[in-house]
Amino acid sequence: MQGVDPAWLPDGAFRPIGTRRTLIRGSGPLVDTVHGEVADACARFGGSVSREGSPEPYDLVLELTGPGDGEAFAFERGDGRTTVTASGGPGLLYGLFHVVRLGDTAFQGSHDREEHRPDVALRMLDHWDNVAVHPVMGQVERGYAGGSLFWEDGRARGELLGRVRAYGRLLAACGINAVAVNNVNVHETEARLLTDRIGEVAAIAAVLRPYGIRTHLSVTFAAPMVLGGLSTADPLDAGVRGWWARTTARVYGAIPDFGGYVVKADSEGQPGPFAYGRSHADGANMLAAALGPYGGTVHWRAFVYDHRQDWRDRTTDRARAAYDHFVPLDGQFAANAVLQVKHGPMDFQVREPLSPLIGAMPRTRLAVELQATQEYTGQQRHVCWLGPMWSEVLRFRPEESAAVGELARGGLVAVSNVGDDPFWTGHPLAQANLYTFGRLAWEPGADPGRILDEWIALTFGPRPAAELHAVLDGSWRTYEKYTAPLGVGWMVQPGHHYGPSVDGYEYSPWGTYHFADRDGVGVDRSVATGTGYAGQYAEQWAEVYESPDTCPDEVLLFFHHVSYNHVLRSGKTVIQHIYDTHFEGVAEVERAREVWASLAGLMDPARHARVAERYEEQLRSAREWRDQINSYFLRKSGVGDAHGRRIY
Amino acid sequence: MQGVDPAWLPDGAFRPIGTRRTLIRGSGPLVDTVHGEVADACARFGGSVSREGSPEPYDLVLELTGPGDGEAFAFERGDGRTTVTASGGPGLLYGLFHVVRLGDTAFQGSHDREEHRPDVALRMLDHWDNVAVHPVMGQVERGYAGGSLFWEDGRARGELLGRVRAYGRLLAACGINAVAVNNVNVHETEARLLTDRIGEVAAIAAVLRPYGIRTHLSVTFAAPMVLGGLSTADPLDAGVRGWWARTTARVYGAIPDFGGYVVKADSEGQPGPFAYGRSHADGANMLAAALGPYGGTVHWRAFVYDHRQDWRDRTTDRARAAYDHFVPLDGQFAANAVLQVKHGPMDFQVREPLSPLIGAMPRTRLAVELQATQEYTGQQRHVCWLGPMWSEVLRFRPEESAAVGELARGGLVAVSNVGDDPFWTGHPLAQANLYTFGRLAWEPGADPGRILDEWIALTFGPRPAAELHAVLDGSWRTYEKYTAPLGVGWMVQPGHHYGPSVDGYEYSPWGTYHFADRDGVGVDRSVATGTGYAGQYAEQWAEVYESPDTCPDEVLLFFHHVSYNHVLRSGKTVIQHIYDTHFEGVAEVERAREVWASLAGLMDPARHARVAERYEEQLRSAREWRDQINSYFLRKSGVGDAHGRRIY
Repeated sequence: MQGVDPAWLPDGAFRPIGTRRTLIRGSGPLVDTVHGEVADACARFGGSVSREGSPEPYDLVLELTGPGDGEAFAFERGDGRTTVTASGGPGLLYGLFHVVRLGDTAFQGSHDREEHRPDVALRMLDHWDNVAVHPVMGQVERGYAGGSLFWEDGRARGELLGRVRAYGRLLAACGINAVAVNNVNVHETEARLLTDRIGEVAAIAAVLRPYGIRTHLSVTFAAPMVLGGLSTADPLDAGVRGWWARTTARVYGAIPDFGGYVVKADSEGQPGPFAYGRSHADGANMLAAALGPYGGTVHWRAFVYDHRQDWRDRTTDRARAAYDHFVPLDGQFAANAVLQVKHGPMDFQVREPLSPLIGAMPRTRLAVELQATQEYTGQQRHVCWLGPMWSEVLRFRPEESAAVGELARGGLVAVSNVGDDPFWTGHPLAQANLYTFGRLAWEPGADPGRILDEWIALTFGPRPAAELHAVLDGSWRTYEKYTAPLGVGWMVQPGHHYGPSVDGYEYSPWGTYHFADRDGVGVDRSVATGTGYAGQYAEQWAEVYESPDTCPDEVLLFFHHVSYNHVLRSGKTVIQHIYDTHFEGVAEVERAREVWASLAGLMDPARHARVAERYEEQLRSAREWRDQINSYFLRKSGVGDAHGRRIY
Repeated sequence: MQGVDPAWLPDGAFRPIGTRRTLIRGSGPLVDTVHGEVADACARFGGSVSREGSPEPYDLVLELTGPGDGEAFAFERGDGRTTVTASGGPGLLYGLFHVVRLGDTAFQGSHDREEHRPDVALRMLDHWDNVAVHPVMGQVERGYAGGSLFWEDGRARGELLGRVRAYGRLLAACGINAVAVNNVNVHETEARLLTDRIGEVAAIAAVLRPYGIRTHLSVTFAAPMVLGGLSTADPLDAGVRGWWARTTARVYGAIPDFGGYVVKADSEGQPGPFAYGRSHADGANMLAAALGPYGGTVHWRAFVYDHRQDWRDRTTDRARAAYDHFVPLDGQFAANAVLQVKHGPMDFQVREPLSPLIGAMPRTRLAVELQATQEYTGQQRHVCWLGPMWSEVLRFRPEESAAVGELARGGLVAVSNVGDDPFWTGHPLAQANLYTFGRLAWEPGADPGRILDEWIALTFGPRPAAELHAVLDGSWRTYEKYTAPLGVGWMVQPGHHYGPSVDGYEYSPWGTYHFADRDGVGVDRSVATGTGYAGQYAEQWAEVYESPDTCPDEVLLFFHHVSYNHVLRSGKTVIQHIYDTHFEGVAEVERAREVWASLAGLMDPARHARVAERYEEQLRSAREWRDQINSYFLRKSGVGDAHGRRIY
């Protein structure tokens, strides 16, 4: 793609293959994709590729051994030949990209046979893309990378085959196998993608299919009314069920491998089953029934809470809402209904505890939703590599028996951070989040630092690897340091969520409070004296979170209202921790900016310039965060900085 | 006008004239207007009207005695005949409306000859109306009464002759004689009103002219570049001056009685002379030179300040800005250049001290700008009659020698609160602000309570007069009570400015701070220890404002940062004053709502319902203000309410 950043698939990544002799065995659309990739590389670098076996010696054999659509593959090397075998087309494709990642190493020495298969079957990106530009949210809701890859001026883009194909290739290369192509807030125009505009979705699906990616669609629960002209959307109404059955049949007529529906119902103003006295299980199961005959799945989002709360009412706790709404429904959801749960109880703050819903619904398939788009983490103007946060989430064990990555039987989902920006993600370094998500979804227990190095090596080559690792590895903790402290969250500008506003959500209807007063700060969510939220966890964690003495520092203010003089495990008081981390965070950004400046000349100048420019904004913004937060708490607490630094 | 509220000119207001015999002497367009008004009334009520004198007995004689365009008139009654004489058409028209206001009283007993003439020559409304709907500000910037009266869908309205004519009539009936028809923030579409779209302005002018109203236009300083294709807008450049001269000649060709230009330059992002190293006087005088040959005036706004201030920098004080910018230019402005000054130093907060610029530029013609549109005073969802505030402003004496009303030699201007709403002003009771402005502009020393009674009698008739007076008279002080205390201002939601957000403008670039901490609140603007702003006043006031001991309570926090325990003249502490006024303010709204409910049946049901509905919102909003402000200061100060009322 002319003018588009190659991201983690630069030409050079294919040199080790493209300079060698490859044999491809088997047939089918994804084998054709594999062949095309290798043939392109050979055309560039002088190697050769054959299909079916003439007897010459090969450096690489890519062999499809079965008729399935499995994703597993085996890799080995012996007798001077590297072999990838898979029983399904997707497996062969993933095997190819495994070889790409290994580079020359794949062709050196010998490698024992390794079997690779994803730990999580569904590895999905949700695009919050609007078809028609929304007057407030724009083309992409919470998008920080330009317009939509899929939609422009109210229609599917004309040049789908170019940009979207390149996108599918990047996704396959990091293991993503599902994409929902429109915003979960389904507005009027977007609703029609389900019916008379399904052809546009089919066109996108056709471009993504060769890369093993199934297409999903966000739909509105009110579709039978707004599209079907029915007088109800009651999920138990026979007419409604019939409408969904017929509509879904037509969807599969257009897209035989359609993935399914994504639904945000009874949430932030979206319609849902509550209007008919029905449960979320009733709603989800109705759609599951329509999708079932075709192998489709409904992803029903658990992001349900009262967004018209009264800040005066301290008995309502938004953090409790998902658990309170959904745990009673455990066991009631159909087998092809997946409950999609945000990883934290609130909404993608820089630090949250795990949602207590995860692990609490053993008879329900859960998908865990992460947010690659940096809504609350710097909006792709700040470097904030989320790998460590996601890894902490996925390795967390709500109960001894299983980690989150294992409990997410319904899949791992990330809200996409991609748009039509030439660098895909606005901030070129935000590509690392997309890549890391895909690789962690494949293997939730993987070391995120290793994934980061993989991404750096593919994207930048060997030269600036150490410096880039240093810049990115700690960037999430740096961001946390200069923004909201100790898990309290929500100290952001209302609406757009960029930049500090300590009281911005304090007297709001959104259920987002910190209760800072002259004596202390934080939300008492204990069972003994607070909202009881801590009691939603399994016993071991409930006990840990219940007391400020055992609660981890990093989420202390999420669970407890403590005095500014409360001493943390670090030995510092809360107020001194606030000051120290905010000064440290800015200093870390200053250092990272210098490191970046030192890398000029080691990469494409446009890429370097884009990042350098964003570092200026990040530093400005980090200083603003530091000064507002510190001034706010100095004014409130009256406690000066122990080190006498300037607080305005 | 069908479906449009008659406001202060209901049919009944003309009954005393329309049932009698009237003689009209003289000729000219405004005499025709007078004749039309009387003839309409007679057609409805059975009286008679003649022009030129047949010898029958008349109850009312309206006589133009000269060829001028003066606004004065004389009124007297003797020998059973009421006589209005004027040497100018506008005077005769104002005399007619004087008779309307008097009603039957005008025809009873005898009245000595009274001469009426306006104290202020220019009595103007500035409409902040956009032609093309602005993506953020909408059709009318800071408009709370629907769309624009003048503009719709990017063009002058088609039905100008209906609605705008009725508007002109209402304005004449309260004494307004000038209207600027477009927003001072002049965007791309609106810029062209000056040139190829002047015909649309001329059409509006033609409708307003019969009511003695001259039309003015807001223009962009950059017009020579954006419209004229010049490479500069430098006010000393001969080409630029020539462009303005030619353009202005064409304007007068289309509108011979055109009033002049309104300019917001070098303010909040608008272009201005600073870009060329020129002064505001250079800029204003260039336009004055272009307008001079035709008798036109430029209104140059003094609302110039740094809107990209750093909140950390306590040496910059936005309140100082207008004085600092303009006082050094005193004596440099042309005779037909008027410096238009907002009445307070900030921006139309519910309580501000007088702008120190007023009275400090004796060799400059100043216009004083008030804001009828209730941007910061409830946005026409709250009852807030501004008469007492404006009267305080106009009667204030910056020096012993003259009150503000006398110093405003360049006119009194209000930002209009009118739109295409059927009740003109959204909230029907907000009509009182429009009427009061007109009448105060005519006579700045008038008792506002008398004007209020006049408006009530004309609009509602005698029945609910006492109740309505009670509801309206204290409404500004009520609004002040439940919103920002003691002159501190700015505790509003950023952007739209509706509803409370105590820290909403605290860490912003707008120069709008309260500096509340755990010990106290307010801005030190003293000379001794603060920004020095207090020293911008003439000595007597500078001394008063300099010390918290002499500074009036109602602006105490504007001038001083004081402890929450500081004792006010009322004997209360600041913190207790905050609590008390906020509880009182809400209680006063509750009472007013009850009074209003008791008036059902005494007026048009639609009007009653509209107000009743707005009282619900006002009460909700007032409670929100009370609780947020009280909670904020309780959390910060730690001082409980002396009366133990509930603070959340």
